Amino acid sequence: IAYSQMKRNKAEMKEIIQLKNYMAEPITPLSQLEKNQDDMKTQMELLIMRIQAEFCRALEKEEDQEAKFKVDRWTRKEGGGGITCVLQDGRVFEKAGVNISVVHGKLPPAAVQQMRSRGKNLQSSELPFFAAGVSAVIHPRNPMVPTIHFNYRYFEVQDKDGVQWWFGGGTDLTPYYLNEEDAVHFHLTLKHACDEHDPSYYPKFKKWCDDYFTITHRGERRGVGGIFFDDVDYPSQKEAFNFVTSCAEAVIPSYMPLVQRHKDDAYGYHERQWQLLRRGRYVEFNLIYDRGTKFGLHTPEARYESILMSLPLNAKWEYMHEPKQNSPEEKLMKVLKEPRDWLNIERNQRATA
Amino acid sequence: IAYSQMKRNKAEMKEIIQLKNYMAEPITPLSQLEKNQDDMKTQMELLIMRIQAEFCRALEKEEDQEAKFKVDRWTRKEGGGGITCVLQDGRVFEKAGVNISVVHGKLPPAAVQQMRSRGKNLQSSELPFFAAGVSAVIHPRNPMVPTIHFNYRYFEVQDKDGVQWWFGGGTDLTPYYLNEEDAVHFHLTLKHACDEHDPSYYPKFKKWCDDYFTITHRGERRGVGGIFFDDVDYPSQKEAFNFVTSCAEAVIPSYMPLVQRHKDDAYGYHERQWQLLRRGRYVEFNLIYDRGTKFGLHTPEARYESILMSLPLNAKWEYMHEPKQNSPEEKLMKVLKEPRDWLNIERNQRATA
Repeated sequence: IAYSQMKRNKAEMKEIIQLKNYMAEPITPLSQLEKNQDDMKTQMELLIMRIQAEFCRALEKEEDQEAKFKVDRWTRKEGGGGITCVLQDGRVFEKAGVNISVVHGKLPPAAVQQMRSRGKNLQSSELPFFAAGVSAVIHPRNPMVPTIHFNYRYFEVQDKDGVQWWFGGGTDLTPYYLNEEDAVHFHLTLKHACDEHDPSYYPKFKKWCDDYFTITHRGERRGVGGIFFDDVDYPSQKEAFNFVTSCAEAVIPSYMPLVQRHKDDAYGYHERQWQLLRRGRYVEFNLIYDRGTKFGLHTPEARYESILMSLPLNAKWEYMHEPKQNSPEEKLMKVLKEPRDWLNIERNQRATA
Repeated sequence: IAYSQMKRNKAEMKEIIQLKNYMAEPITPLSQLEKNQDDMKTQMELLIMRIQAEFCRALEKEEDQEAKFKVDRWTRKEGGGGITCVLQDGRVFEKAGVNISVVHGKLPPAAVQQMRSRGKNLQSSELPFFAAGVSAVIHPRNPMVPTIHFNYRYFEVQDKDGVQWWFGGGTDLTPYYLNEEDAVHFHLTLKHACDEHDPSYYPKFKKWCDDYFTITHRGERRGVGGIFFDDVDYPSQKEAFNFVTSCAEAVIPSYMPLVQRHKDDAYGYHERQWQLLRRGRYVEFNLIYDRGTKFGLHTPEARYESILMSLPLNAKWEYMHEPKQNSPEEKLMKVLKEPRDWLNIERNQRATA
């Protein structure tokens, strides 16, 4: 114990990193991470590296022996890079992508504009920035296992008045067949993660998630929601980081039990066809509405393969498809058209009011 | 002959319409069409009805007996409506959609803004408009048969200074395997249609097509192009209409021979997989870049099923797919990355200069 304590005090970054079993070398050179150990940029990079590795290992554990993540470490000539991990055509996961990126450079004017429209006070139009984030989309093969998406990110923008920073992120679930117990388990796990930090977070970020993941032209949500937030720069940098850490750490316990429970469920041609149609809706949301995807694809020299990793391996569009009355497919659609208060938060609030 | 001449002079709209064997009743009531026979709005509605019917019949002729277009005639509460014809899961055509719409009402401010950004001089922000158009996307099952898309439309906007009108449209081809003879035949047919009206049209509209159908983030075109134009309000309304008529009439001779030639070509799993990946790219273009799709989906109360009829029945996204060197797939990619001068127009121009 004394020895390990001494080590931690000495903080030998190289050893720390070896112990963590990350998917690849960090993007920022070790020497730089070592020098800036207390910097939030370093802490965020280490967090997303760890979350990526833990989630990839957890997914691999559910797969056949030979199905492993392929790892692409890439760099950007403008500064920084990323690690893209993809597992494609597995028995359990049809397409699973877990990506981190650590980038810096000058923000393009369009990005500054978008941030201003969200209320940021930014003076000039080409600003130095730093962004580090992890994002993942998992499309399982079995239609009884939902798709999960999460993304946690940290942003710094250097203005003439100093550095502005904030966190954003969220985790959300897209089932093909509604299992209410699963949805409650998922939301409850996220709520616990939020409640540790502020009891107002879960209800607020649950609603934000329902609002954000809307396929407007169809008047339906992408899935059963979860949490979503942006511009979190409160109550302090340390506490905001701890909150994001809790959320990111909640991904595995919120999702992996659903995979384990349903990966061997029976299904047939009909269920597969429905899953493919819903995957078409997933594509519609991501390509038409998702801020991150649109923003990414309109950035010059974007690594579009990492951005579009979120798209399913297979998708389908049928003209005027309508689920049968009282079918399980229609049951799902009802929840997508009218988001549910899974944990009875509003009812309990009304009761105590 | 005298009798039929007399009939034409009497122009009994009801009989004209019965003779044409349209897919459904016109959107505009017969009595109104009859009253306004010389109006361009009437002429355009009859043109698109005829083009729709002729194209649907031509496609059905290549199909098995039982595969027929389903016809949906729909109306919009703001004014007008459309006829959507879809043939899905045929032996020859995996998904074929041929749509007309005849709509009128008030242009939303965003649409006026978009038109202004294209140089239209429009004074107020909510303007009465009329739009009539035909559009079709045909996704064949055999990967050796290309996908075709075309759209021809007429627009009127009522400003305080009077009515502004213009035509727009185009026809373009998306092969999965490049057949140079097919591409030349396709372009030549379109060129002949253009040349009847103005020899400068084909080269100009061919380039416009290559520029428009670009998947910017991938640096590739959607297909081998064709023609594309907008804001055609010259040399006169009658001549512009005749030009659009020629283009629309060129669709069948430009495309059907390719269907007939290749619908029974041999192919296997590999070719099908490649076709599905390219269909994923088609979805990317339509959902991210296509002006009509974006505009349509952002219009309140849009009939999204008719707009998204253009999406393929099946599509696929693989992370980092790269065609093998010197493969037929790579040969196609080269043409998509660098559009070709199929009819040697530029070379001949240089030679005669």
